[in-house]
Amino acid sequence: MVTEKTTQGGRRRGRRPGGTDTREALVNAAREVFIEQGFDGATVRAIAAKAGVDAAMVNHWFGGKEGLFGEAVLKLPFNPQDIIDILVSAPPDEIGQTIVRTFLTRWDRTGGGVFTALMRSVTSHDEAAALLRDFFLKHVFKQVIGTFAPDRHDFRATLLATQIVGLGMVRYVARFEPLASTDIDTLAAAIAPTLQRYISGPIT
Amino acid sequence: MVTEKTTQGGRRRGRRPGGTDTREALVNAAREVFIEQGFDGATVRAIAAKAGVDAAMVNHWFGGKEGLFGEAVLKLPFNPQDIIDILVSAPPDEIGQTIVRTFLTRWDRTGGGVFTALMRSVTSHDEAAALLRDFFLKHVFKQVIGTFAPDRHDFRATLLATQIVGLGMVRYVARFEPLASTDIDTLAAAIAPTLQRYISGPIT
Repeated sequence: MVTEKTTQGGRRRGRRPGGTDTREALVNAAREVFIEQGFDGATVRAIAAKAGVDAAMVNHWFGGKEGLFGEAVLKLPFNPQDIIDILVSAPPDEIGQTIVRTFLTRWDRTGGGVFTALMRSVTSHDEAAALLRDFFLKHVFKQVIGTFAPDRHDFRATLLATQIVGLGMVRYVARFEPLASTDIDTLAAAIAPTLQRYISGPIT
Repeated sequence: MVTEKTTQGGRRRGRRPGGTDTREALVNAAREVFIEQGFDGATVRAIAAKAGVDAAMVNHWFGGKEGLFGEAVLKLPFNPQDIIDILVSAPPDEIGQTIVRTFLTRWDRTGGGVFTALMRSVTSHDEAAALLRDFFLKHVFKQVIGTFAPDRHDFRATLLATQIVGLGMVRYVARFEPLASTDIDTLAAAIAPTLQRYISGPIT
Protein backbone atom coordinates (compact mmCIF):
# COMPACT_ATOMS: atom_id res chain seq x y z
CA MET A 1 0.00 0.00 0.00
CA VAL A 2 2.82 2.37 0.83
CA THR A 3 4.60 1.38 -2.34
CA GLU A 4 1.51 2.07 -4.39
CA LYS A 5 1.04 5.52 -2.92
CA THR A 6 4.70 6.37 -3.33
CA THR A 7 4.55 5.31 -6.93
CA GLN A 8 1.59 7.56 -7.43
CA GLY A 9 3.50 10.58 -6.26
CA GLY A 10 4.63 10.17 -2.65
CA ARG A 11 3.22 11.63 0.51
CA ARG A 12 3.14 15.24 -0.55
CA ARG A 13 0.79 14.70 -3.41
CA GLY A 14 -0.70 11.24 -3.27
CA ARG A 15 -2.00 10.58 0.21
CA ARG A 16 -3.72 12.13 3.14
CA PRO A 17 -1.27 13.02 5.90
CA GLY A 18 -3.23 11.11 8.54
CA GLY A 19 -3.91 7.91 6.58
CA THR A 20 -2.98 4.34 7.39
CA ASP A 21 0.06 4.62 5.14
CA THR A 22 1.32 7.33 7.48
CA ARG A 23 0.80 4.98 10.38
CA GLU A 24 2.77 2.23 8.68
CA ALA A 25 5.55 4.61 7.69
CA LEU A 26 5.82 5.71 11.33
CA VAL A 27 6.03 2.13 12.57
CA ASN A 28 8.82 1.34 10.14
CA ALA A 29 10.75 4.52 10.89
CA ALA A 30 10.27 4.05 14.63
CA ARG A 31 11.71 0.59 14.62
CA GLU A 32 14.89 1.87 12.99
CA VAL A 33 15.27 4.95 15.17
CA PHE A 34 14.55 3.13 18.45
CA ILE A 35 17.11 0.47 17.65
CA GLU A 36 19.70 3.10 16.68
CA GLN A 37 19.03 5.55 19.50
CA GLY A 38 17.41 3.58 22.30
CA PHE A 39 14.09 4.54 23.82
CA ASP A 40 15.38 7.64 25.58
CA GLY A 41 17.51 8.83 22.69
CA ALA A 42 14.83 8.46 20.06
CA THR A 43 12.72 11.57 19.58
CA VAL A 44 9.26 11.80 18.11
CA ARG A 45 10.61 14.52 15.84
CA ALA A 46 13.38 12.28 14.45
CA ILE A 47 10.99 9.39 13.85
CA ALA A 48 8.44 11.61 12.13
CA ALA A 49 11.18 13.14 9.97
CA LYS A 50 12.41 9.73 8.90
CA ALA A 51 8.87 8.70 8.05
CA GLY A 52 8.39 11.97 6.19
CA VAL A 53 5.28 12.92 8.15
CA ASP A 54 4.31 15.56 10.67
CA ALA A 55 5.26 14.81 14.28
CA ALA A 56 1.65 15.38 15.33
CA MET A 57 0.80 12.13 13.57
CA VAL A 58 2.60 10.22 16.34
CA ASN A 59 0.10 11.45 18.88
CA HIS A 60 -2.73 10.98 16.46
CA TRP A 61 -1.99 7.33 15.79
CA PHE A 62 -0.13 6.13 18.88
CA GLY A 63 -0.90 8.54 21.70
CA GLY A 64 2.81 9.36 22.05
CA LYS A 65 6.25 7.84 22.05
CA GLU A 66 5.38 4.97 24.44
CA GLY A 67 2.55 3.81 22.26
CA LEU A 68 4.68 3.98 19.13
CA PHE A 69 7.42 2.01 20.84
CA GLY A 70 4.93 -0.61 22.02
CA GLU A 71 3.55 -0.98 18.54
CA ALA A 72 6.71 -0.75 16.47
CA VAL A 73 9.30 -2.49 18.57
CA LEU A 74 7.51 -4.60 21.15
CA LYS A 75 4.65 -5.32 18.72
CA LEU A 76 2.23 -5.08 21.59
CA PRO A 77 -1.48 -5.27 20.90
CA PHE A 78 -2.05 -2.53 23.47
CA ASN A 79 -0.60 0.86 24.31
CA PRO A 80 1.79 0.55 27.24
CA GLN A 81 0.79 4.02 28.40
CA ASP A 82 -2.76 2.74 28.98
CA ILE A 83 -1.31 0.04 31.23
CA ILE A 84 0.76 2.56 33.15
CA ASP A 85 -2.31 4.73 33.66
CA ILE A 86 -4.28 1.77 35.04
CA LEU A 87 -1.50 0.73 37.39
CA VAL A 88 -0.61 4.09 38.89
CA SER A 89 -4.25 4.74 39.75
CA ALA A 90 -4.71 1.45 41.65
CA PRO A 91 -5.32 1.54 45.43
CA PRO A 92 -1.91 1.02 47.09
CA ASP A 93 -2.89 -2.25 48.77
CA GLU A 94 -4.22 -3.62 45.48
CA ILE A 95 -1.32 -2.81 43.18
CA GLY A 96 -0.05 -6.43 43.16
CA GLN A 97 -3.49 -7.72 42.30
CA THR A 98 -3.96 -5.05 39.63
CA ILE A 99 -0.66 -5.88 37.94
CA VAL A 100 -1.34 -9.61 37.75
CA ARG A 101 -4.84 -9.10 36.36
CA THR A 102 -3.84 -6.40 33.90
CA PHE A 103 -0.85 -8.34 32.66
CA LEU A 104 -2.66 -11.65 32.24
CA THR A 105 -5.76 -10.14 30.69
CA ARG A 106 -3.74 -8.35 27.99
CA TRP A 107 -1.37 -11.20 27.19
CA ASP A 108 -3.98 -13.97 27.36
CA ARG A 109 -5.90 -12.12 24.67
CA THR A 110 -3.03 -12.64 22.21
CA GLY A 111 -2.72 -16.32 23.04
CA GLY A 112 0.74 -15.69 24.40
CA GLY A 113 2.26 -15.45 20.93
CA VAL A 114 3.19 -11.82 21.33
CA PHE A 115 4.88 -12.45 24.65
CA THR A 116 6.82 -15.36 23.18
CA ALA A 117 7.98 -13.23 20.25
CA LEU A 118 9.09 -10.53 22.67
CA MET A 119 11.09 -12.99 24.78
CA ARG A 120 12.61 -14.48 21.64
CA SER A 121 13.88 -11.03 20.67
CA VAL A 122 15.24 -10.44 24.11
CA THR A 123 17.09 -13.73 24.27
CA SER A 124 18.57 -13.51 20.79
CA HIS A 125 19.51 -9.86 20.25
CA ASP A 126 21.40 -7.73 22.71
CA GLU A 127 19.93 -4.61 21.13
CA ALA A 128 16.44 -5.84 21.83
CA ALA A 129 17.36 -6.69 25.40
CA ALA A 130 18.79 -3.22 25.89
CA LEU A 131 15.69 -1.57 24.45
CA LEU A 132 13.40 -3.65 26.59
CA ARG A 133 15.46 -2.90 29.66
CA ASP A 134 15.33 0.82 29.02
CA PHE A 135 11.66 0.83 28.31
CA PHE A 136 10.39 -1.28 31.18
CA LEU A 137 12.79 -0.10 33.83
CA LYS A 138 12.89 3.60 33.01
CA HIS A 139 9.27 4.00 32.01
CA VAL A 140 6.78 1.31 32.94
CA PHE A 141 8.24 0.08 36.22
CA LYS A 142 9.66 3.43 37.22
CA GLN A 143 6.26 5.06 37.19
CA VAL A 144 4.63 2.22 39.09
CA ILE A 145 7.42 1.96 41.63
CA GLY A 146 7.64 5.73 41.94
CA THR A 147 3.99 5.80 42.87
CA PHE A 148 3.97 3.00 45.44
CA ALA A 149 7.44 2.09 46.72
CA PRO A 150 8.84 3.51 49.96
CA ASP A 151 12.53 3.01 49.13
CA ARG A 152 15.07 1.15 46.95
CA HIS A 153 13.12 1.92 43.83
CA ASP A 154 15.57 0.41 41.34
CA PHE A 155 15.98 -2.86 43.19
CA ARG A 156 12.23 -3.20 43.74
CA ALA A 157 11.61 -2.55 40.05
CA THR A 158 13.90 -5.42 39.06
CA LEU A 159 12.40 -7.75 41.67
CA LEU A 160 9.00 -6.95 40.21
CA ALA A 161 10.38 -7.77 36.78
CA THR A 162 11.55 -11.23 37.89
CA GLN A 163 8.06 -12.30 38.87
CA ILE A 164 6.30 -10.78 35.87
CA VAL A 165 8.78 -12.09 33.30
CA GLY A 166 8.76 -15.51 34.96
CA LEU A 167 4.98 -15.65 35.01
CA GLY A 168 4.91 -14.91 31.28
CA MET A 169 7.67 -17.39 30.51
CA VAL A 170 5.98 -20.23 32.35
CA ARG A 171 2.45 -19.47 31.14
CA TYR A 172 3.13 -18.56 27.51
CA VAL A 173 6.53 -19.84 26.48
CA ALA A 174 7.35 -22.98 28.45
CA ARG A 175 3.63 -23.60 29.05
CA PHE A 176 4.07 -25.48 32.27
CA GLU A 177 0.80 -27.07 33.37
CA PRO A 178 -1.32 -26.56 35.35
CA LEU A 179 -0.25 -22.89 35.52
CA ALA A 180 -0.52 -22.36 31.76
CA SER A 181 -4.27 -22.92 31.94
CA THR A 182 -5.04 -21.74 35.46
CA ASP A 183 -7.72 -19.03 35.61
CA ILE A 184 -6.71 -15.45 36.34
CA ASP A 185 -8.46 -15.25 39.74
CA THR A 186 -6.50 -18.21 41.06
CA LEU A 187 -3.22 -16.84 39.73
CA ALA A 188 -3.92 -13.38 41.11
CA ALA A 189 -4.55 -14.85 44.57
CA ALA A 190 -1.30 -16.80 44.47
CA ILE A 191 1.02 -14.24 42.88
CA ALA A 192 -0.30 -10.80 43.88
CA PRO A 193 1.17 -11.00 47.42
CA THR A 194 4.61 -11.45 45.87
CA LEU A 195 4.30 -8.32 43.75
CA GLN A 196 2.79 -6.40 46.65
CA ARG A 197 5.81 -7.23 48.78
CA TYR A 198 8.34 -6.48 46.06
CA ILE A 199 6.75 -3.07 45.49
CA SER A 200 6.07 -1.87 49.02
CA GLY A 201 6.74 -4.61 51.58
CA PRO A 202 9.81 -5.88 53.44
CA ILE A 203 12.55 -7.17 51.13
CA THR A 204 15.39 -7.71 53.56
CA MET B 1 41.76 -37.31 27.62
CA VAL B 2 40.20 -36.69 24.26
CA THR B 3 43.32 -34.86 23.15
CA GLU B 4 45.47 -37.76 24.20
CA LYS B 5 43.38 -40.23 22.19
CA THR B 6 43.39 -37.98 19.18
CA THR B 7 47.13 -37.61 19.44
CA GLN B 8 47.43 -41.35 19.54
CA GLY B 9 45.63 -41.68 16.26
CA GLY B 10 42.04 -40.51 16.58
CA ARG B 11 38.88 -42.49 17.05
CA ARG B 12 39.50 -45.07 14.36
CA ARG B 13 42.60 -46.49 15.95
CA GLY B 14 42.89 -45.28 19.51
CA ARG B 15 39.55 -46.06 21.14
CA ARG B 16 36.43 -48.09 20.83
CA PRO B 17 33.87 -46.21 18.73
CA GLY B 18 31.04 -46.67 21.24
CA GLY B 19 33.01 -46.22 24.48
CA THR B 20 32.49 -43.79 27.34
CA ASP B 21 35.18 -41.53 25.93
CA THR B 22 32.99 -41.07 22.87
CA ARG B 23 30.07 -40.18 25.10
CA GLU B 24 32.11 -37.63 27.00
CA ALA B 25 33.48 -36.10 23.81
CA LEU B 26 29.93 -35.74 22.50
CA VAL B 27 28.69 -34.03 25.65
CA ASN B 28 31.57 -31.57 25.57
CA ALA B 29 31.14 -30.83 21.88
CA ALA B 30 27.37 -30.55 22.23
CA ARG B 31 27.56 -27.96 24.98
CA GLU B 32 29.77 -25.74 22.83
CA VAL B 33 27.68 -26.14 19.71
CA PHE B 34 24.35 -25.62 21.48
CA ILE B 35 25.61 -22.49 23.20
CA GLU B 36 26.96 -21.14 19.93
CA GLN B 37 24.11 -22.13 17.64
CA GLY B 38 21.02 -22.56 19.81
CA PHE B 39 18.96 -25.70 19.65
CA ASP B 40 17.74 -25.18 16.11
CA GLY B 41 21.07 -24.16 14.67
CA ALA B 42 23.06 -26.99 16.17
CA THR B 43 23.20 -30.13 14.05
CA VAL B 44 24.05 -33.66 15.11
CA ARG B 45 26.52 -33.70 12.25
CA ALA B 46 28.30 -30.57 13.54
CA ILE B 47 28.41 -31.89 17.09
CA ALA B 48 29.71 -35.28 16.02
CA ALA B 49 32.31 -33.64 13.79
CA LYS B 50 33.49 -31.46 16.67
CA ALA B 51 33.71 -34.51 18.90
CA GLY B 52 35.55 -36.41 16.19
CA VAL B 53 33.11 -39.32 16.26
CA ASP B 54 30.51 -40.81 13.98
CA ALA B 55 27.11 -39.11 14.06
CA ALA B 56 25.47 -42.48 14.75
CA MET B 57 27.02 -42.36 18.22
CA VAL B 58 24.58 -39.57 19.15
CA ASN B 59 21.68 -41.95 18.73
CA HIS B 60 23.56 -44.74 20.41
CA TRP B 61 24.28 -42.78 23.56
CA PHE B 62 21.51 -40.17 23.74
CA GLY B 63 18.67 -41.31 21.50
CA GLY B 64 19.07 -38.22 19.32
CA LYS B 65 19.67 -34.49 19.45
CA GLU B 66 17.04 -33.84 22.14
CA GLY B 67 18.60 -36.34 24.49
CA LEU B 68 22.03 -34.92 23.89
CA PHE B 69 20.69 -31.41 24.56
CA GLY B 70 19.24 -32.56 27.86
CA GLU B 71 22.49 -34.12 28.92
CA ALA B 72 24.84 -31.45 27.65
CA VAL B 73 22.87 -28.27 28.30
CA LEU B 74 20.31 -29.02 30.99
CA LYS B 75 22.20 -31.48 33.12
CA LEU B 76 25.87 -30.78 32.89
CA PRO B 77 26.24 -27.21 34.18
CA PHE B 78 25.64 -28.95 37.48
CA ASN B 79 24.61 -32.45 38.36
CA PRO B 80 20.85 -32.27 38.88
CA GLN B 81 20.88 -35.11 41.35
CA ASP B 82 23.30 -33.18 43.56
CA ILE B 83 20.92 -30.24 43.49
CA ILE B 84 17.94 -32.39 44.35
CA ASP B 85 19.85 -33.96 47.24
CA ILE B 86 20.74 -30.55 48.62
CA LEU B 87 17.19 -29.26 48.33
CA VAL B 88 15.30 -32.20 49.81
CA SER B 89 17.56 -32.26 52.84
CA ALA B 90 17.05 -28.56 53.65
CA PRO B 91 15.19 -27.66 56.86
CA PRO B 92 11.54 -27.09 55.83
CA ASP B 93 11.56 -23.42 56.83
CA GLU B 94 14.75 -22.81 54.85
CA ILE B 95 13.82 -24.42 51.55
CA GLY B 96 13.16 -21.06 49.84
CA GLN B 97 16.51 -19.73 50.95
CA THR B 98 18.27 -22.93 49.93
CA ILE B 99 16.78 -22.86 46.43
CA VAL B 100 17.77 -19.24 45.76
CA ARG B 101 21.30 -19.79 46.97
CA THR B 102 21.78 -23.08 45.16
CA PHE B 103 20.34 -21.77 41.92
CA LEU B 104 22.33 -18.54 41.88
CA THR B 105 25.57 -20.15 42.95
CA ARG B 106 25.42 -22.71 40.14
CA TRP B 107 24.32 -20.36 37.37
CA ASP B 108 26.55 -17.46 38.41
CA ARG B 109 29.48 -19.80 38.01
CA THR B 110 28.76 -20.16 34.29
CA GLY B 111 28.49 -16.39 33.87
CA GLY B 112 24.87 -16.81 32.90
CA GLY B 113 25.79 -17.98 29.40
CA VAL B 114 24.40 -21.44 29.88
CA PHE B 115 21.13 -20.10 31.25
CA THR B 116 20.82 -17.69 28.34
CA ALA B 117 21.40 -20.46 25.82
CA LEU B 118 18.79 -22.54 27.60
CA MET B 119 16.19 -19.78 27.47
CA ARG B 120 17.02 -19.02 23.85
CA SER B 121 16.32 -22.61 22.97
CA VAL B 122 13.13 -22.61 24.99
CA THR B 123 11.79 -19.51 23.28
CA SER B 124 12.66 -20.70 19.78
CA HIS B 125 11.81 -24.37 19.84
CA ASP B 126 8.80 -26.17 21.25
CA GLU B 127 10.76 -29.36 21.74
CA ALA B 128 13.22 -27.49 23.92
CA ALA B 129 10.37 -26.06 25.96
CA ALA B 130 8.99 -29.56 26.33
CA LEU B 131 12.40 -30.77 27.42
CA LEU B 132 12.74 -28.09 30.03
CA ARG B 133 9.23 -28.77 31.26
CA ASP B 134 9.80 -32.48 31.55
CA PHE B 135 13.13 -32.09 33.19
CA PHE B 136 12.26 -29.51 35.81
CA LEU B 137 8.70 -30.51 36.51
CA LYS B 138 9.12 -34.28 36.47
CA HIS B 139 12.50 -34.42 38.11
CA VAL B 140 13.75 -31.42 40.05
CA PHE B 141 10.56 -29.72 41.21
CA LYS B 142 8.57 -32.89 41.76
CA GLN B 143 10.99 -34.17 44.35
CA VAL B 144 11.30 -30.82 46.12
CA ILE B 145 7.58 -30.21 46.18
CA GLY B 146 6.90 -33.81 47.18
CA THR B 147 9.12 -33.31 50.21
CA PHE B 148 7.78 -29.96 51.44
CA ALA B 149 4.38 -29.10 50.00
CA PRO B 150 1.16 -29.80 51.94
CA ASP B 151 -1.15 -29.83 48.91
CA ARG B 152 -1.64 -28.81 45.26
CA HIS B 153 1.76 -30.13 44.30
CA ASP B 154 1.50 -29.48 40.58
CA PHE B 155 0.31 -25.91 40.91
CA ARG B 156 2.93 -25.12 43.55
CA ALA B 157 5.65 -26.58 41.31
CA THR B 158 4.70 -24.27 38.47
CA LEU B 159 4.45 -21.23 40.76
CA LEU B 160 7.95 -22.05 41.95
CA ALA B 161 9.03 -22.21 38.33
CA THR B 162 7.71 -18.70 37.59
CA GLN B 163 9.95 -17.12 40.20
CA ILE B 164 13.03 -19.18 39.37
CA VAL B 165 12.77 -18.73 35.60
CA GLY B 166 12.06 -15.02 36.04
CA LEU B 167 15.02 -14.57 38.34
CA GLY B 168 17.28 -16.19 35.76
CA MET B 169 15.80 -14.19 32.90
CA VAL B 170 16.27 -10.86 34.64
CA ARG B 171 19.72 -11.62 36.05
CA TYR B 172 21.32 -13.44 33.12
CA VAL B 173 19.37 -12.70 29.95
CA ALA B 174 17.82 -9.23 30.18
CA ARG B 175 20.46 -8.22 32.77
CA PHE B 176 18.30 -5.65 34.49
CA GLU B 177 20.32 -3.62 36.96
CA PRO B 178 20.72 -3.48 39.87
CA LEU B 179 19.46 -7.07 40.19
CA ALA B 180 21.94 -8.46 37.66
CA SER B 181 24.83 -7.60 39.96
CA THR B 182 23.15 -7.81 43.35
CA ASP B 183 24.91 -10.18 45.76
CA ILE B 184 23.37 -13.54 46.55
CA ASP B 185 22.66 -12.75 50.23
CA THR B 186 20.57 -9.73 49.31
CA LEU B 187 18.68 -11.62 46.64
CA ALA B 188 18.08 -14.56 48.93
CA ALA B 189 16.58 -12.25 51.57
CA ALA B 190 14.26 -10.65 49.04
CA ILE B 191 13.18 -13.70 47.05
CA ALA B 192 13.30 -16.65 49.45
CA PRO B 193 10.00 -15.73 51.16
CA THR B 194 8.28 -15.96 47.78
CA LEU B 195 9.56 -19.48 47.15
CA GLN B 196 8.81 -20.48 50.73
CA ARG B 197 5.19 -19.42 50.28
CA TYR B 198 4.81 -21.05 46.87
CA ILE B 199 6.12 -24.33 48.26
CA SER B 200 4.38 -24.56 51.61
CA GLY B 201 2.54 -21.35 52.44
CA PRO B 202 -0.91 -19.94 51.68
CA ILE B 203 -1.52 -19.51 47.95
CA THR B 204 -5.21 -18.67 47.89
